[in-house]
Amino acid sequence: MVDVQIVEVSPRDGLQNDPATLTTEQKVGLVQRALAAGLRRAEVASFVNPKRVPQMADAEDVVAGAAALPGRDDHSLIGLVLNVRGFERAAATAVDEVNLVVAASDSFAQRNQGMSVQDAVRSVAEVVPLALAQGIAPTVTVSTAFGCPFEGEVPVDRLVAVVAELAATGVEEIAIADTIGVAVPADVRARVRAVRTATGDVRLRAHFHNTRNTGYANALAAYEEGVRVLDSSLGGIGGCPFAPRATGNIATEDLVYLLERSGVDTGVDLDALIAASDWLGEQLGRPTPSLVSKAGGFPRGAD
Amino acid sequence: MVDVQIVEVSPRDGLQNDPATLTTEQKVGLVQRALAAGLRRAEVASFVNPKRVPQMADAEDVVAGAAALPGRDDHSLIGLVLNVRGFERAAATAVDEVNLVVAASDSFAQRNQGMSVQDAVRSVAEVVPLALAQGIAPTVTVSTAFGCPFEGEVPVDRLVAVVAELAATGVEEIAIADTIGVAVPADVRARVRAVRTATGDVRLRAHFHNTRNTGYANALAAYEEGVRVLDSSLGGIGGCPFAPRATGNIATEDLVYLLERSGVDTGVDLDALIAASDWLGEQLGRPTPSLVSKAGGFPRGAD
Repeated sequence: MVDVQIVEVSPRDGLQNDPATLTTEQKVGLVQRALAAGLRRAEVASFVNPKRVPQMADAEDVVAGAAALPGRDDHSLIGLVLNVRGFERAAATAVDEVNLVVAASDSFAQRNQGMSVQDAVRSVAEVVPLALAQGIAPTVTVSTAFGCPFEGEVPVDRLVAVVAELAATGVEEIAIADTIGVAVPADVRARVRAVRTATGDVRLRAHFHNTRNTGYANALAAYEEGVRVLDSSLGGIGGCPFAPRATGNIATEDLVYLLERSGVDTGVDLDALIAASDWLGEQLGRPTPSLVSKAGGFPRGAD
Repeated sequence: MVDVQIVEVSPRDGLQNDPATLTTEQKVGLVQRALAAGLRRAEVASFVNPKRVPQMADAEDVVAGAAALPGRDDHSLIGLVLNVRGFERAAATAVDEVNLVVAASDSFAQRNQGMSVQDAVRSVAEVVPLALAQGIAPTVTVSTAFGCPFEGEVPVDRLVAVVAELAATGVEEIAIADTIGVAVPADVRARVRAVRTATGDVRLRAHFHNTRNTGYANALAAYEEGVRVLDSSLGGIGGCPFAPRATGNIATEDLVYLLERSGVDTGVDLDALIAASDWLGEQLGRPTPSLVSKAGGFPRGAD
């Protein structure tokens, strides 16, 4: 057993807003390299309207390719869905999990998903029983859990109320996401503790962006606060097309360096991650924002 | 009184290895902007052999320009010196402090300063009484305090032994520096505690690079461990010409965002820092590595 599980989100959250467009084969190559490095869960596609997110138009083919990779029994493939229609598309593929999204702030919900927070919660409540009936694990991410680009502060009470409604839907895991990268570790500690009063037995997960250079400190704070599932993206690519200036996710290789050097077992091979990140940068045609991929791990010293 | 004092190191540690060469006027403009934003201590020049570090050849002129800025009584200007000869140059200027450097690892000391750790400690012991006699505050930075690019691990005992020798010289402040950016918060906590056994009343300071994206978490850990003086560099520029791949210092604006949002008063104006960082990027002809200068502070929300 590893100490913490890392969910690789580069194929979806990483790529969906990238200026480069990868082919289906390249996306599957990315998933393959992530899983070969020791990652076990990967968000591989988004079953949303391809007119809104053209980067994800080949969702079905990416899942099919990822599901054909060796070691299938060890892998959990995740598809993002926003409603029953998206779920039905996802359920027709080999995904093991569906991840839904509910914003903690109404302005963001309206601009990002075109619906209110309440309507998004209702979508989750509709999808969860369908997913459970088909043996697909339903999870949900609460976006703007630490701040909203349009409203600013998101009160802790507001976040807890949304999480409580989501926990009541029977969802298996709830991720709190710093969509716009504003959180600091004190926020993480306070919100993880507050949210725990509402999650009951539901597993907690955290998702950080490094928009203001606080993402790694936040991830470590979440781990120290008992969160055992963390999202990250190879190379630190990614962002949200609807959040102004939201730069990349925390980078998987930088997160693994931080955790492993802190004595936390991730089960992931850092050298393999760096090689995968280098490969990803070549596919995208530019260097990725991660730093460990440039600096390398801890120096080994003279031979 | 602020909760933590930030020492601005961009004019020296930031610029000394930069591919761009700023004029004396530009350097003084950088110091001016940093001090106007509320920073009170600035490392403005290095009194080393200009053949080795040509970027610092105008040290005397930069100090003279910085000393002529308004608000002189509130500012402490720092000059880096490596030995008595450098000190004598610095003492002929208006610097308020001299900062010496001693590596914690012999391989780094030899390659960086061309002398052993013991010889570097002796230089400090020679300079400290001269500085005190002239009313110049002597401080020392222990480089490679968390790891050495050539030797790898630097044992805690080794660091404590060097710090104990330095504390005995009468130096007024000892900075522990993660020169190559390998530390994680657990290292910071362990080393700050260990070093405290040897520092007595000597003030402790910490210096982090963000080479592997751990620098901000480390700075916060140092603060939480009671360190009340932190180094940073506007824009996150800087590095060490003798440390392979050592990228920039932590960025002042990103550090201030992290601290202020954590409820720690820095006495520094974030908007003024961002403006100063933007100006610095224009002078250097490229964007700086800081992120808050691009993303801005916490969103203010709709009017």
